Amino acid sequence: MASATDETKPTPTVAKGLEGIVAAATNIAEVDGEKGKLTLRGYDISELSGNIQFEEVCYLLWNGKLPNQSEFDDLKAEMQSARELPAPVMDAIKAFAPYADGMHVLRMGASLLSIGDPDVDSLDIAGSRRRAARLQAQIPAIVAHTYRVKQGLPIAKPLPEQGLAAGFLQMLEGETPSEARVAGLNAYLVAVAEHGLNASTFTGRVVTSTDSDMVSALTAAIGALKGPKHGGVPGPVLKMLQTIGTPDKADAFIRTEITEGRRIMGFGHRVYKVRDPRAELLSDAADALATNANDQNVSNLLTLTKAVEGTTVKVLAELKPGRDLYANVELYAALILHAVGVPSELFTPIFAIGRTSGWTAHMIDQLEDQRLIRPASVYIGARDLKFVPMSDR
Amino acid sequence: MASATDETKPTPTVAKGLEGIVAAATNIAEVDGEKGKLTLRGYDISELSGNIQFEEVCYLLWNGKLPNQSEFDDLKAEMQSARELPAPVMDAIKAFAPYADGMHVLRMGASLLSIGDPDVDSLDIAGSRRRAARLQAQIPAIVAHTYRVKQGLPIAKPLPEQGLAAGFLQMLEGETPSEARVAGLNAYLVAVAEHGLNASTFTGRVVTSTDSDMVSALTAAIGALKGPKHGGVPGPVLKMLQTIGTPDKADAFIRTEITEGRRIMGFGHRVYKVRDPRAELLSDAADALATNANDQNVSNLLTLTKAVEGTTVKVLAELKPGRDLYANVELYAALILHAVGVPSELFTPIFAIGRTSGWTAHMIDQLEDQRLIRPASVYIGARDLKFVPMSDR
Repeated sequence: MASATDETKPTPTVAKGLEGIVAAATNIAEVDGEKGKLTLRGYDISELSGNIQFEEVCYLLWNGKLPNQSEFDDLKAEMQSARELPAPVMDAIKAFAPYADGMHVLRMGASLLSIGDPDVDSLDIAGSRRRAARLQAQIPAIVAHTYRVKQGLPIAKPLPEQGLAAGFLQMLEGETPSEARVAGLNAYLVAVAEHGLNASTFTGRVVTSTDSDMVSALTAAIGALKGPKHGGVPGPVLKMLQTIGTPDKADAFIRTEITEGRRIMGFGHRVYKVRDPRAELLSDAADALATNANDQNVSNLLTLTKAVEGTTVKVLAELKPGRDLYANVELYAALILHAVGVPSELFTPIFAIGRTSGWTAHMIDQLEDQRLIRPASVYIGARDLKFVPMSDR
Repeated sequence: MASATDETKPTPTVAKGLEGIVAAATNIAEVDGEKGKLTLRGYDISELSGNIQFEEVCYLLWNGKLPNQSEFDDLKAEMQSARELPAPVMDAIKAFAPYADGMHVLRMGASLLSIGDPDVDSLDIAGSRRRAARLQAQIPAIVAHTYRVKQGLPIAKPLPEQGLAAGFLQMLEGETPSEARVAGLNAYLVAVAEHGLNASTFTGRVVTSTDSDMVSALTAAIGALKGPKHGGVPGPVLKMLQTIGTPDKADAFIRTEITEGRRIMGFGHRVYKVRDPRAELLSDAADALATNANDQNVSNLLTLTKAVEGTTVKVLAELKPGRDLYANVELYAALILHAVGVPSELFTPIFAIGRTSGWTAHMIDQLEDQRLIRPASVYIGARDLKFVPMSDR
């Protein structure tokens, strides 16, 4: 390792935040921040919206192609059998869930998922794809069951024929959700399934790079997503929208926030220099949900969100020219999840449900071209200090 | 993000494994692989061996200086009060410990440690130092309690006056350990406390970089250490030594292994091009333990380990000239932990006990100069594929 104070060598450049460092070549996703384009396994994300089921996108991410009917049936069978959690996992959940919240409780739950998987330490690629499918089925069960345990409610089982989105709402609520709500949640999960080498996905790849197992890597990724700088703040976005109340109040609110130096929730992204392409998909999904469910509240919130977006872009261009801050996925994520009717404290855990597909796809990708991820550091501290006994300090 | 197939831009270089990329400037540690020198906060690791207590090294790593008596008393009081785990944590441990092993069970236990810490999401630096101390006290309790639960034994409490090494052995065994064993374990923990930006430490920094909490980052680091490429194989090292049996059999065994293309356990390191400086410290500690405990088995194993080291270096130089493979920390770690008398399935969890100090020091270091760690990736897949309905696939 190079030394910062070694006179014969130049001080190495520190790649803070690893910005601009290309850590992986991958065929899973491309985030084109200039064009506002997100490609998953060759498909523009807009090609994957509409009637596609989230599990199809999972299959695509894990296998590199969309499934035919027989492959899809096999996948759904594997996932549906996995979502009944092992008894020791349920016992542990009952012990800790009343004492933890949000992403903390999801991290605790995810950490247990090696139980019942005798091959969990195997790095076999085909086995890892099946493991990804099972974990993808189990994470929604953890989110739903911990929530109900915290509410003092009995565990609710999904109906055997329900897919992931419907099954999750059934486990969360104990009753069969409307098709409109299932479609809204499904569209959300598709939109957030995968987004390149962000901090949580990178965390999962670093853990995998040691030949550790997928449960350890998934638990680590959940811990990274928990950070407000990454998993973001869809709860506060909703609160901001509710504070603004009606479109006519947006201009004054946004102007005050920006003038007083506060960040507008739901705007700006390190990669996107234009509007996040997922904003459009989620806005469309919210529109469809409002129409299908004939829900005036959702229509009103959608109108408000669009007004807040337009106003913020206009006011930012006026007060902070050249900053290029556009709506990110959080703004419309808050809208669609609120429209689906899930509690706002579950917004980030539900994001994790969707992203489990992308995380695990990257773990498999890492395994397929394995190399330990171990960057260097440069030492800038003292040297050759002499030990002094405690009595002389 | 640059595109691999965009004709107007060159394909970016992929920094595979981030080898040679300097990801952080730090004053915590320097690993000089050319000279075989490890510096912690200005002190060569050999300055910190001998009579120093592990908790002093923890204080040094977290605060940048060795503690005076009053600072040390405060630290020990904080750690001793923290090591009695909250009741829900104990209840959860009892539920999952019988169904999980080794680093899996440690990951599950560590994930619970936000319980009982109402400020766990605070990023305050002074508070983070206190949190590091409490987590450092709790991880040994998790290792010891899960082990006893798995054995069907009742939980054993430490004596109030016991430091970390003694308290851990007391919690593990339910009886007061000899001073010689405590000193041996203490020397081991000091030797492995911190070692720069390895994969687990880096994982902890990436998670912290999202403004996530220290429990999430610690759980993630444990998951990374679990990987055989990183946390290593001290169990198999011991098995290899036992297979060899006596020094006179070393030459034939090593020759066969190398000729048949197998790796010799406990040799080689990505950074060190000479002997790992911790090998010396651990060898000395084993020597002291053998003398103080008057233990002929330990003496014999030490003689054997030294013979295996010398033989391997000699045979490698003969059969694989220029490979520069020397003894790493694992070879003597296996020796000292076996001499202390802890079960070999706990070797990597006990490594994690020691390394928690370094991990948490790096998390605090990251917070003090915070920047989201988000590298780029390059897309090498297809583009502009068109969606085809399932019936047509």
